[in-house]
Amino acid sequence: MSYTESQIEGRNAVIEALRAGKSIDKIYILDGCQDGPVMTIKREARKSDCLIKYVAKERLDQLSQTGKHQGVIAVAAAYEYAELEDILDAAQKSGRPPFLFLLDGIEDPHNLGAIIRTAYQSGAHGVIIPKNRAVGLTATVARTSAGALNYLPVAKVTNLSQTIESLKERGIWFACADMQGEVMYRANLTGPIGLVIGSEGEGVSRLVKEKCDFRVSIPMEGKLDSLNASVAAGVLAYEIVRQRMQQ
Amino acid sequence: MSYTESQIEGRNAVIEALRAGKSIDKIYILDGCQDGPVMTIKREARKSDCLIKYVAKERLDQLSQTGKHQGVIAVAAAYEYAELEDILDAAQKSGRPPFLFLLDGIEDPHNLGAIIRTAYQSGAHGVIIPKNRAVGLTATVARTSAGALNYLPVAKVTNLSQTIESLKERGIWFACADMQGEVMYRANLTGPIGLVIGSEGEGVSRLVKEKCDFRVSIPMEGKLDSLNASVAAGVLAYEIVRQRMQQ
Repeated sequence: MSYTESQIEGRNAVIEALRAGKSIDKIYILDGCQDGPVMTIKREARKSDCLIKYVAKERLDQLSQTGKHQGVIAVAAAYEYAELEDILDAAQKSGRPPFLFLLDGIEDPHNLGAIIRTAYQSGAHGVIIPKNRAVGLTATVARTSAGALNYLPVAKVTNLSQTIESLKERGIWFACADMQGEVMYRANLTGPIGLVIGSEGEGVSRLVKEKCDFRVSIPMEGKLDSLNASVAAGVLAYEIVRQRMQQ
Repeated sequence: MSYTESQIEGRNAVIEALRAGKSIDKIYILDGCQDGPVMTIKREARKSDCLIKYVAKERLDQLSQTGKHQGVIAVAAAYEYAELEDILDAAQKSGRPPFLFLLDGIEDPHNLGAIIRTAYQSGAHGVIIPKNRAVGLTATVARTSAGALNYLPVAKVTNLSQTIESLKERGIWFACADMQGEVMYRANLTGPIGLVIGSEGEGVSRLVKEKCDFRVSIPMEGKLDSLNASVAAGVLAYEIVRQRMQQ
């Protein structure tokens, strides 16, 4: 996963970038600046959970690449998405059966970051996320992934069910987390596998669920429906790890 | 775990409560109010991740219990901590060997909430947290626990190592998460057990680690040190569940 930083300078450019949901890590603002556009930037910045640093004019002049910062410079993080083929290549090179994560509509960036971290640490070859109805690779995701985003390929696809369909033709089996599924300890998860994790609120969507080969459940003693999405992903991933280690 | 709501009225009382780190769910503020103390309340409220609602004077008058709200009413959440004995009683009543979580310095309320949820769902009898160096049962913890906080007893103790010492005398064995420990699949985790989870940054502290009977590790394929604390807690908890189910 390659990472580049780009700089956005000037009030309107920064406001636009924030409103467009661009992944901004940090904003440098001229200390003491309180006018309308700057207040708008602060308000938008707070919504998107990005860091604000108040600095002196000299520091801004030094940072500026355009010479026209107008008191505001934003540093944007840009993560490049991988292609599906990159993930399959990584699997082949590892000499182990493919092990992928597919995330069906994870909306919380902390959950996405924690899942990417778990995927990487549990030996998965990549993570696949849908283009719509999901959070992208923002600065918060990068931070919560604790660096995993720099190592693990993440691919973005238009249609998750179609992707499952085409990966099935390549010999990969799909297991989704589902309360009504077979208890995970009894399912055979040792082959080439795609682990499908649903969104926090609604679980795996019907269309995607129908494409899956297995439905596996985590045993629950309590009265609640589920675990936190990133915890569920971790528990299922490590059941796969355990079964593979015991082979 | 019993839950009560209490109301704090007036500017200074609310500022004090926020600064004291009291667990506040919601603050009602008179719409349009912009003076110094109200700005301070807004600033402090944002830090502690509590909800602000702007309402009309009539609504505040209606909500007020004192008649002296000065434009600000805060609703504080108060969770009552359980006693250690409550947790041991719950274990005995369940007819299963005791299964406790001990959290050594978890500071992130989202992690604490997710861990309480996992503890409840995996069949643990209670969670023990230390008085210092840790987050308490705030509104954010309650929200992330997805309701588990209403069912599972959480006890707060002064000294975690002393608590471990005294619980060992009651026949409970302690396992802590530790990178250098035995791979969890090989440890025997079927008996009466206390699972010790360390803080996000520093893991389990030395003094607590020394008191533990086992050190267990989660196998890691990636280059990072660890998983997110709540994910690690979930993976270890479900290894205990698996071993107990297979007995």
